[in-house]
Amino acid sequence: MKKLFRTHNCNELTKSDVGKEVVLAGWVERIRDLGGIKFIVLRDRYGTTQVVVNPSSSAYSIAQEISREYVVQIKGEVRERPEETKTNSPTGEIEVYASSIKILSESKLPPFYPGDSVSEELRLKYRYIDLRSDKMQQNIILRHKMAQAAREFLNKHGFLEIETPYLTKSTPEGARDFLVPSRLQKGKFYALPQSPQLFKQLLMISGFDKYYQFARCFRDEDLRADRQPEFTQIDIEMSFVTEEEILNIMEEFVRFVYKSVGIVLPEKFDRLTYEEAMEKYGSDKPDRRYGMELHDFTEDFRNTGFKVIDNVIENGGTVKGFITNIPMSRKIASEYEAYVKSFGLGGLLWFKIDNNEIISPTAKFLAKNYEKLRTKYKLKNGDVVLLAAFKERETLNIALGALRLKIGKEHFENKTKVIDALWVIDFPFLEWNQDEQRYVAKHHPFTLPKNIDDEPHKITAHAYDMILNGNELGGGSLRIFSREIQEKVFDLIGLTKEEANEKFGFFLEALQYGVPPHGGIAFGFDRMVAIAANSESIRDVIAFPKTASGVCQLTGAPSEVTQQQLEELSINVVKNKEKI
Amino acid sequence: MKKLFRTHNCNELTKSDVGKEVVLAGWVERIRDLGGIKFIVLRDRYGTTQVVVNPSSSAYSIAQEISREYVVQIKGEVRERPEETKTNSPTGEIEVYASSIKILSESKLPPFYPGDSVSEELRLKYRYIDLRSDKMQQNIILRHKMAQAAREFLNKHGFLEIETPYLTKSTPEGARDFLVPSRLQKGKFYALPQSPQLFKQLLMISGFDKYYQFARCFRDEDLRADRQPEFTQIDIEMSFVTEEEILNIMEEFVRFVYKSVGIVLPEKFDRLTYEEAMEKYGSDKPDRRYGMELHDFTEDFRNTGFKVIDNVIENGGTVKGFITNIPMSRKIASEYEAYVKSFGLGGLLWFKIDNNEIISPTAKFLAKNYEKLRTKYKLKNGDVVLLAAFKERETLNIALGALRLKIGKEHFENKTKVIDALWVIDFPFLEWNQDEQRYVAKHHPFTLPKNIDDEPHKITAHAYDMILNGNELGGGSLRIFSREIQEKVFDLIGLTKEEANEKFGFFLEALQYGVPPHGGIAFGFDRMVAIAANSESIRDVIAFPKTASGVCQLTGAPSEVTQQQLEELSINVVKNKEKI
Repeated sequence: MKKLFRTHNCNELTKSDVGKEVVLAGWVERIRDLGGIKFIVLRDRYGTTQVVVNPSSSAYSIAQEISREYVVQIKGEVRERPEETKTNSPTGEIEVYASSIKILSESKLPPFYPGDSVSEELRLKYRYIDLRSDKMQQNIILRHKMAQAAREFLNKHGFLEIETPYLTKSTPEGARDFLVPSRLQKGKFYALPQSPQLFKQLLMISGFDKYYQFARCFRDEDLRADRQPEFTQIDIEMSFVTEEEILNIMEEFVRFVYKSVGIVLPEKFDRLTYEEAMEKYGSDKPDRRYGMELHDFTEDFRNTGFKVIDNVIENGGTVKGFITNIPMSRKIASEYEAYVKSFGLGGLLWFKIDNNEIISPTAKFLAKNYEKLRTKYKLKNGDVVLLAAFKERETLNIALGALRLKIGKEHFENKTKVIDALWVIDFPFLEWNQDEQRYVAKHHPFTLPKNIDDEPHKITAHAYDMILNGNELGGGSLRIFSREIQEKVFDLIGLTKEEANEKFGFFLEALQYGVPPHGGIAFGFDRMVAIAANSESIRDVIAFPKTASGVCQLTGAPSEVTQQQLEELSINVVKNKEKI
Repeated sequence: MKKLFRTHNCNELTKSDVGKEVVLAGWVERIRDLGGIKFIVLRDRYGTTQVVVNPSSSAYSIAQEISREYVVQIKGEVRERPEETKTNSPTGEIEVYASSIKILSESKLPPFYPGDSVSEELRLKYRYIDLRSDKMQQNIILRHKMAQAAREFLNKHGFLEIETPYLTKSTPEGARDFLVPSRLQKGKFYALPQSPQLFKQLLMISGFDKYYQFARCFRDEDLRADRQPEFTQIDIEMSFVTEEEILNIMEEFVRFVYKSVGIVLPEKFDRLTYEEAMEKYGSDKPDRRYGMELHDFTEDFRNTGFKVIDNVIENGGTVKGFITNIPMSRKIASEYEAYVKSFGLGGLLWFKIDNNEIISPTAKFLAKNYEKLRTKYKLKNGDVVLLAAFKERETLNIALGALRLKIGKEHFENKTKVIDALWVIDFPFLEWNQDEQRYVAKHHPFTLPKNIDDEPHKITAHAYDMILNGNELGGGSLRIFSREIQEKVFDLIGLTKEEANEKFGFFLEALQYGVPPHGGIAFGFDRMVAIAANSESIRDVIAFPKTASGVCQLTGAPSEVTQQQLEELSINVVKNKEKI
């Protein structure tokens, strides 16, 4: 048997190993010369060990050749460190006196060292160096742990992990598909799945009862800051369950997964209806950690004599706002005003309570309401009230909700360790798409409506989103399990019978052969880990992510391919086509 | 809280539940009328329960409406069955007397019932019905169990599950890539990975030490009978390990996974060198369960006076063959002869021992060797010796190996419950590609050669395949971990420096910054499960497989897409192009 590369890893040796002959292997994290003695900090995935090389050791000449990020194998004796040089690290009481060193792999001077603060572009190009940093190692290990905890929970609860195809049928409804030209079926294309939605429903129709999958999903969207063209979803589906049962077990699931990495979520998640969420937070994924709920001030501001407000109210509009306690100035106010105007509002009013007096550019209009407001809303010194009036309630909610979030992030982010977890339920089933002049499904067209025969804008869905710190961690619904209702829904969203059949005929057919009532959810696993890692970007919890323009900085993908490859696929690249 | 759909599943109720009011839900597996009483067998993923509906029950009228594959919810009382109608099934001692039945979902007359013996085409088109059969349910559950056992083992041994990209760079070397046109980077393409080979090596360079992934892999090959364009690989890689350590732990891994589903593999896997495997079995994935090792008979047949043989031997050729005990006839012999001729041999000789006499069309030429052979090979009555002579030893081995396998499958398949597990090691590093007139890597060009400076055809590799019952269950190697050797290998397989840089420049660069010695393996998970399920085809252990022409019979993928989709991707389909 060939000799082993190492007898121990770099996080293993303690005082009880003193006197042992050991072999370690790893990267040179640091190398210093102290009074003619070389001190090497050797690093592997598990930790670090200090190695000492005396000038008298035959390893010394090799030690002179090596530098940071070299991969070396070191043989030596474990000795206890002098008391004053001991540290608290797991190997902090010992050091290894090298008798021999072997260079396994040299390293050129790297463009940066692991953990250095450099541009993300450089980190992504040399991802294999970036991933050596303690932070990235911990992130990837955290991801592993959370994935295994998720499986542990789901397995224990009788879910089966079942793989569904990645080469599947294009059904453009929702985001744009990535296409894959077929060589054997010329002129035809597979699509990469945006999610395994129909397959998991087919698995329920197949009788599998409880399914899950860590599914890669693909969406060819114009990438926003923290989107990836491929992302990982924990996809879950169950048969013969009520909405209540799904919410309960999925809450338990998420608590379990976070607990496995030491994060405690609330024992019971609050539930807000979509309408409540919009009214109180101007968002269907409220981050409640910042407080600052929106209030309806319409009645408080009726007939102030302040024209702007009076006009809006007289025309059936609304006055809303929220109370905070941030520093205010004209400059800040005009920044915030510009911000809410970008959402379509006409302006932003504000006043501040200082020495029990109202301070505001528009104080004279607001003063007469002051006493009433102060009592009603328990205003105190230092409080700031931000207000807007607008005819459309939804726009008003959204704009103020966005401002609230902006202020929250600017002033209160990281001030709270609490995790805010809740469900938003009772979503509208449809939303009006102004561009296409038709209704589209708010979640997706397989969601079970509660009141299908109502007026379209009044239909609500058996749909639910799980929100964690203002992030949509997951979303799901009960599903339609009858062909008749499914066809009604396709009709509602403007699909002709022919289009419905062409795209979803196989699924409509499947709905005819005995379908269990079913429902499920899908969690964004990248985001789930990013929250646990306290990372702003999901790129920090993905080993090899892409940039916002879909480029892999490391490999250079996507790249040009040979003419032969294109010919085999019977496709051509269209060049310089202006209209595209 | 809304009412539950069921209080128990269909495999749960026993005598101890007698008297309970229960609610069950599931599919109608059978419905019979016996003397005016309806007997329904209700089925779900867990099992079946017998339901009795008396004419006096208000459920009776509903029971008259339902038929097979309806999904129903049944409320009733658990009663003990009359002694004579009890069965051994888990619920065989009880039946449920229905007080009410609710139809949850009707079923049209399905094209077949689950488990019916129908064409595979029909099974695939209505996969959701096919998957309801007990066999397919068990296969998918088996797959789940083996996947979880695999993870359990790997997690316990410190491996991290890390996801690598599916949208990656095309590096045509080996099989054909599936391409994905990029919309944001017009004219450029991603490729779907044929395996995560380079990414897992980059993870080693990143210091992750032990990695695994259940990776979907994509190869656009002309599909052979049991190939799928996408398949699942258990992809594994380790740093700082010897070949011996990898073989040992991977053997243990596979034993553990099979043991989790009740299949016991040998305590220690034999190891054959590639050369031994070719000499004894004419195959680098020998199925040794059939015996019938190939023997070199050259010396035994020197100077028989049989021209065909003498000529071959005089010209430096070889006589090989094997001993079996199947019935022989001229008809069978000529079928076998045609078979070996299809591999390039000139003919096939045979003789049989009957009443201690040699029976053969060419007995007179063989008779004089008979006594010698009988002693040397311990021939007994009933033995059949099949023989061929050919100038090229490799072709001879392959042809006889194929014949051996054919006979094995025809006569001895299923006669053995033993599982044959072994390693084939010491593979040649290169093989000559006649079409391209160059050497190509036998495994892949990242494999570590043992003797890179030797003549190309003499170089062997640190490569190993795990063979189970004649199937290549997995294959792997130690990897090159120096840029210098990697460049030599690219040169050996005829890549210019420019080509190497264009395709693999990023990887060559990575090899410069401290690379641990590493190696790994990848297992074909579909095949691994198919063997455990005793299924001939991997399609039987994949929920939604494709046909040999890459078509999903269920969804119709691949399919045509809209002109708008193509325009957004700046590609065109080339039509009627003759030369393609």
